[in-house]
Order: sequence, then structure tokens, then C-alpha cells
Amino acid sequence: MLDPSDWSAFRAQSHRVLDDALDYLERVRDEPAWREVPDDVKTRLRAPMPQEPAGFEGAYREFSEAIFPYNGANVHPRFFGWVQGTGSASGAIAELLAATMNANVGGRNHGAVYVERQVIDWFKTLFGFPPTAGGITVTGTSAANFIAVLVARTWALGTRVRESGLAGDALRLTAYASADAHSCVRAAFENAGLGSAMLRVLPVDERHRLPTAAVAAAIARDRAAGYRPFMLIGSAGTVDTGAIDPLDDLAELARRESLWFHVDGAFGAMAYLAPSLQPLLLGIERADSIAFDFHKWLHVPYDAGCVLVRDGEMQRATFSSATAYLTRTQRGLSSGSPWFAEFGPDLSRGFRALKVWFAIKEHGARKLGEAIARNCAQAQYLKTLVERDPAFELVAPVGLNIVCFRYAAPGLHGEALDRFNEELTIRLQESGIAVASSTTVGGCRAIRVCIVNHRSCDEDFDVLLDALRRLATE
Amino acid sequence: MLDPSDWSAFRAQSHRVLDDALDYLERVRDEPAWREVPDDVKTRLRAPMPQEPAGFEGAYREFSEAIFPYNGANVHPRFFGWVQGTGSASGAIAELLAATMNANVGGRNHGAVYVERQVIDWFKTLFGFPPTAGGITVTGTSAANFIAVLVARTWALGTRVRESGLAGDALRLTAYASADAHSCVRAAFENAGLGSAMLRVLPVDERHRLPTAAVAAAIARDRAAGYRPFMLIGSAGTVDTGAIDPLDDLAELARRESLWFHVDGAFGAMAYLAPSLQPLLLGIERADSIAFDFHKWLHVPYDAGCVLVRDGEMQRATFSSATAYLTRTQRGLSSGSPWFAEFGPDLSRGFRALKVWFAIKEHGARKLGEAIARNCAQAQYLKTLVERDPAFELVAPVGLNIVCFRYAAPGLHGEALDRFNEELTIRLQESGIAVASSTTVGGCRAIRVCIVNHRSCDEDFDVLLDALRRLATE
Repeated sequence: MLDPSDWSAFRAQSHRVLDDALDYLERVRDEPAWREVPDDVKTRLRAPMPQEPAGFEGAYREFSEAIFPYNGANVHPRFFGWVQGTGSASGAIAELLAATMNANVGGRNHGAVYVERQVIDWFKTLFGFPPTAGGITVTGTSAANFIAVLVARTWALGTRVRESGLAGDALRLTAYASADAHSCVRAAFENAGLGSAMLRVLPVDERHRLPTAAVAAAIARDRAAGYRPFMLIGSAGTVDTGAIDPLDDLAELARRESLWFHVDGAFGAMAYLAPSLQPLLLGIERADSIAFDFHKWLHVPYDAGCVLVRDGEMQRATFSSATAYLTRTQRGLSSGSPWFAEFGPDLSRGFRALKVWFAIKEHGARKLGEAIARNCAQAQYLKTLVERDPAFELVAPVGLNIVCFRYAAPGLHGEALDRFNEELTIRLQESGIAVASSTTVGGCRAIRVCIVNHRSCDEDFDVLLDALRRLATE
Repeated sequence: MLDPSDWSAFRAQSHRVLDDALDYLERVRDEPAWREVPDDVKTRLRAPMPQEPAGFEGAYREFSEAIFPYNGANVHPRFFGWVQGTGSASGAIAELLAATMNANVGGRNHGAVYVERQVIDWFKTLFGFPPTAGGITVTGTSAANFIAVLVARTWALGTRVRESGLAGDALRLTAYASADAHSCVRAAFENAGLGSAMLRVLPVDERHRLPTAAVAAAIARDRAAGYRPFMLIGSAGTVDTGAIDPLDDLAELARRESLWFHVDGAFGAMAYLAPSLQPLLLGIERADSIAFDFHKWLHVPYDAGCVLVRDGEMQRATFSSATAYLTRTQRGLSSGSPWFAEFGPDLSRGFRALKVWFAIKEHGARKLGEAIARNCAQAQYLKTLVERDPAFELVAPVGLNIVCFRYAAPGLHGEALDRFNEELTIRLQESGIAVASSTTVGGCRAIRVCIVNHRSCDEDFDVLLDALRRLATE
């Protein structure tokens, strides 16, 4: 009843839509990197829920006029604003197929389940996890880190925590991460009821990394004060500077202190696909759990992340439940145990594994790794350009793919210089030439260029600096 | 670098893929409702991560052979297995567009943000929530219920719970739901650290509804024992029988007892779009929060759910965080406050609002409501067919759109009859004619027919019962 009344008309219309989508991606370099949503469009998008149908044609017309032209920019070759992937044309086609199948990958016995298992197995193998490890795709690393915290909570307290909640002893559980760890790690502790105060946030060293000795000292202090250290979180690619914590040292410390070692590898973990970058991540293969995104450095369309847990049974024990309508059978559509819904909080689960599967099948791991290595080389290229021009100064080491620098406007210092650089970043966005972002690093306001973009070429960084120079002197 | 090297070849290939997808949906009635994944396909889907590219063409070939034919069935007109939506052809096109844009709707100032705001506003208005209410799209009702529990936790304990965790008083917080409430409600209490024991699960009445008087008595008992009742959860459409709790009475009780009133309306809340069904949901407009899915009775492709919170500032206070790289500006791409990431746990958020927007724009609210009402009428039709044939017997009242019945095989009782009906359900699936599921209702094993399907017509239920009769006597 919601199907097209005229399939051939719908088919013709769909082919036109597909051409529009491909036209956009093919020519995105000629589009402005960002344009503001005009006020009349904002007004249009405040219309009340329609009672009567506009038809697909009518809906698409409004989409073409009021939504598509004001896209958020991460598909542009000069989008360097935040750690966001670029998407891809074939990723969009994979999403079309996933939505056509409409698969719910919560569980049961159907093709999509085997695809997600394959994707999870690929990454278990990549990171040296055993076949008994668990894993699921999720919306992103926020969800993945939360799942890891819950599994570590089960490991520390036993499954009785599910029923009894966080009573008594539980309130002495402490965990450790760097001050540059992502805010979603803190949120995971809040949402799990453990409290963010129990996540000890330690200052980073001059390379923006978590110093292992500082963690060891904090653990000793906490033990002496009667706390119960249970989890250590290393970051593989921090959001501000791209720094990678000394994962191997942290893994060793966690082993010695009997802590759960979790790696938040939101974007950085994927650098493991590039042989030249693997050494930077040494130690990740010793983690008890790893969280990372596919929608960042693998460029699959939003949203798609993943969590892997070395002890798959511990993950299952954290989430599995048995209820009447979810009964398993040995045959039929209700077979296929274990179900993915037993390994995370969602019972209905979209088929986000398909777009990951397509990216890896289409390109192969080697080429995806090369695209990542190329972004890191581009960061070094930009660093050289910045260092060569006295108008600019670097404000943080270039860890992986993020370059933080500022325009050293003559005669400006302190807050005035901060404001100048923030305004410069906004004007860059408004110019439509490129998108960078602002952040505060080492106490000063910086222009932050995150390079997670398979469409960028070296010339795009020349264009970026030229634009900044021109805008700064205007 | 991950773009097609030959756009025109990729374009031609994409158009062929689109035709395949539309062919499938146009002819899905002629497909078996389910077919088992063969062993050789399972083996094929265990191949290791490829290093070298197969190209889009190669990837699509494998998809066509090993994945697409083994789809999970919910797109079929005789899929009645679980409460799953049917998807739609235009929903698949909407997903293609969302993935083309690759929008991250965590926040900032771009078109997708205004679309999600519009979708949320539509449903706030539908349920009589004020403009100051908060809301976000999520993966589904599991996530939506969890967010509601966290916001209610903030309401009960103040925002200090984020930092301090669940110390002292927090451990006396109790909540109330029926024994037929969804298992994800219990999981929300587990994951939030409150403990499932504090969710008081009360027996249902003969219509499978939560009796208000029993809740009142449980609250009184808990208060007397020093507990602190804080939350009452009503179900709008339980998963086993489709029962709707007496929401208006529960809302009144919650008001009187100063509890947070949450409605889990996973699929049932959407019945509010049908004027004839609205009276069944009376009281939902008094809720403090509502959780529901778009991927069920609105048939948007998986996954898409929603949570609405009457007190938007309470929702924001539960999740909002301020960190350097998320700094807001007054202009540019970093403006557009408030950001959706402040209203839930995910910082990266896919553009799932677009497929909802398309469904409502294309069809209009009235037609979507009619499709829901038609499913409820079909449940009554099936009920009549079951009652008319002495070979079958109903085992639960038909609440909304779910019919639980069994084949009363002559001479079989108790466990033997249970096993017979479970086997019959599996054989039905294996026949490819239709998909129903098994559940235990009122102590006996039933065939459960959930009608959330815009492709079903009345004859499909005749075909279903004919098949069951034939399989039962074979």
C-alpha cells in the first residue's frame, strides 16, 4: 500500500535521482566546501507535518531545493574541519542495497548476519584477536566505547551487576585515560553509572601522549586510598592532535596491574591497514577491547563503527537476555545463534555491515591502507608549508594526520591573536574554499586541519594556505 | 582516490544495480518468504579480508550471488514473524541520498540538521509535546528507552550523578513496568547501573495490561520499605500480544506520586497517526518521555527510532558536554547550536532523519495512519478466520495487530502440543509461503502473527491458514 502505484514511473524517477546523486559526487570539487542555509530555507523546513501526500516526485523536488544544496561539506576535497570520513559513491550504492533488503541484523538466520560476521572476523584477524573474540558494528565509537566500558564493568564485578546495580564496592572502581582522550569516554562512565570522577584524567606529555609512569603512579595512589583500579584506556589518534598513546607500554602496565586495557581507536586504529603506520600502533593487538569507526578513515557513509572484545563470552554475558519471543530454534529463521543483539544494547540493528563489506571488497585492504598513509603524508606536506612561511606557526606536533597551526598576525598576542585565528577559520568556511576548524591546544587557539579525505590532493593544501593568507590580510 | 576511476562506467553499473533493486521489490511477492542460506554460501562468506581490489563490479557480483538471495524476509507480503517494518522502495532511494550527502548530524550548521529538527518537531506536535521538548532520532527503541532512563535518572538525582555515579541514595531508586514490557527496558536499567532488580516487573491483567492498582500498591510497599520510586513505564503495544497499558490512568498515578512517566511505544505509538486508533493511546500525550520506532510501522528502512522528552533542558543536561574541539561559534559551520549530540550519547550521527522525512512527505500522515489501521483490521480478519475454524484456537486477546493462536492437533496436549506448534511454525518458514513466529503466551506455545506490513492484503491471511492446515496434516 506504500509501494509505488506506477512502478515504471517510479523507476524512471529513481534513475533521475541516481544521476543527480552521481553528478553531485563527480563534480563536488567545483562546489563550495560549505554554504550557509539561507533563512527562507530554514523557514521552509519548519512547515508542519503534512497530512496529504506530496508523492515521491514532490518530496524529491523539495529535497533538491531545500536540503541537498546545503550539505555539511565532508564530501568536499578541501574539507579538513573535523575527523569525518569523505563517503564514497559506491558506499552510497551499498546503502541503497542495504535499505532495499531492509535487513534487521539483530539476529536470526539470513544472509546479512553472515556478512556482519565476516566483517567482524576480518577486523578480529587484523588486530590479532582470537576466533573466540566478540564484536559488533555500532553507530560509532561513542557507542563502541560505552559497550567496552560495560563489558569491563562485568569483568570487574561479575554479571550480578546487571541485576544488583552499582552497589558498595562498585563505587570504588577507577579507570585511567589521558586529558586528550575523547569526551565520549567520559560520557561512557557517566552513562554506565560509574561516574566521570572515577575516570582519572591524566595530563599528557609534550607529544600529547598519556605517560605510562603517570598512570602507574595514579594507580598506586588509588590503591593506597582504597580504590579499585579496573580499566585503562589508551587513545590511538586523539581528536585534537592525532597523538597515539604508547599502547604497548600501557598494555604491559595493564597486564601487570590486572586492568582491562581498552583502546579508543576512533579513527587511528584504521591506520593499522597501512604497513608503514602499523609500528605506531604497536600494542593495540594486546588490548582487551578496541573501539573504532568505519565512517572515518574507511570512508563508508555515516554511520558505522565497531567494537571488538577479546573475551567474546564476557561481551555476551553483559548483554544477552532470554525472552519468550526471542526463543531460538534449531531450524528456520529463528536459528543462527548467537545473535548480534546478545553482544550489545540494540535489538533492532540495521545492515551497516554491508557498506563496510563493499568498501573492503571493492578496494581491498591494501588500497584502503594507502589512502590512509597518503593523508598522513599530506599532513607532513602541510607541516612543511606551514614551517616554511613565517606568517604561520605550528602549535602542536603533527602526530598522524592533524596539523594545528595559527596565523601569527603581526602585533597581536594572547586573546586578541586567539580571536583573530577563530575569525579567520570562520571566514575560510564562509569563503567556501575550504573547511578547517578551531581548537585550543597548549593554551592557544589554533586552526586545526584534520586530513581524513580520499579526495584531497597536495595542491588542495597550497590552495588552503593561499586562502588563509589572503583572508588574513583582508 | 577511492572514487571511480571511470565515472561513466560506474554510472552505468549503478543504474543496473538500481534496476536489480527495484526488480526485487516489484516482484517480491513471487519470491519465497524465506530461504535458508546454503552451506556453500556460508563458507564463501568466511573468506579472509581481501588485500587486493575486486572492483565495484566484482563486489556486486558476489553480493548478487551470496547475499541478496538470502534476505531476511521482512519485505515479503507474508512476513508476519516479528514486529518488523516492511521497508519501501522510496525509503531505499532516500537512503541512497542520505549516504550521498554523508551528513554527520551530530551538530553544526548544515541542511541535515534542519531536516532532523523538522522531523522531531512533527512528532512533538503529534503527541502534544511543547516546543521546548527535546528529541533525537536513534537506532531504535532500545536506544530510545535507554536515553529516557538516563534522563529520568538525571531528573531524580540531579546532574551531579554524571560525575559522582550512583552512590548512596541512588541505590534506592525503583521503577515499575509490566511483565510484558520489552526486555530492552530491563536492559536499560542494567546498562545505566541502576540494576534490573530495581525495575519492579508486575504481572499483567487478563488483557495483558499493567494494572494501575498493582502499580500503586507496589509504590506504597516500596516507599514503606525506604525505597524511592522515580519512574513508571507504560507500554504502548507489547511485543507478545500488542496490548496497550492504560496510559491515561498510569499518567495520573505518576502525576500523583511524582514519578517520571515514560511510554515505550516501540511500534504502538505510531498508531496515533490513525484517528480511529488514537483513543487506545489516550494518555500518551501526558508522558514525560516517549520512545518509538520509525522502522516498524512507518516502514522506513532499518534502522530508525526516536525519543522525545517533554523537558528538553533535562535531556540536554544529561548528555551535553563542552570540549575544545566542539566549540560553538556564532557564524560558520560550527554555529547552529544546540547540537543533536547534546541530547544523546552519540557524537557522530547518521542522517536517518531523511528517510523519515521522505516517508512523511511522500505519503502524508493520513495515508500512513490508514496503513496502520488496515493492519489492525487485518488482525481482526485473521482472528475471525481462526475462530471460525475449530482446528485453531486463539491463545491471547487480539490487542492491536498481533494474533497469537495455535493448531489444536487432535490428541495432543501440554508439551507435546507446544512442540507441535513450534515445529509447525518452523515448517511454515521452511515452506517459503509465509513467516510467523513462536512465542509462549499464558503458559502455552503459540503461533504469533505480527501484522506490520504495508504489502499484505486480506488474501495473504487465507493463504497463511491454508498453509498451516496443510502442513499440520502432513
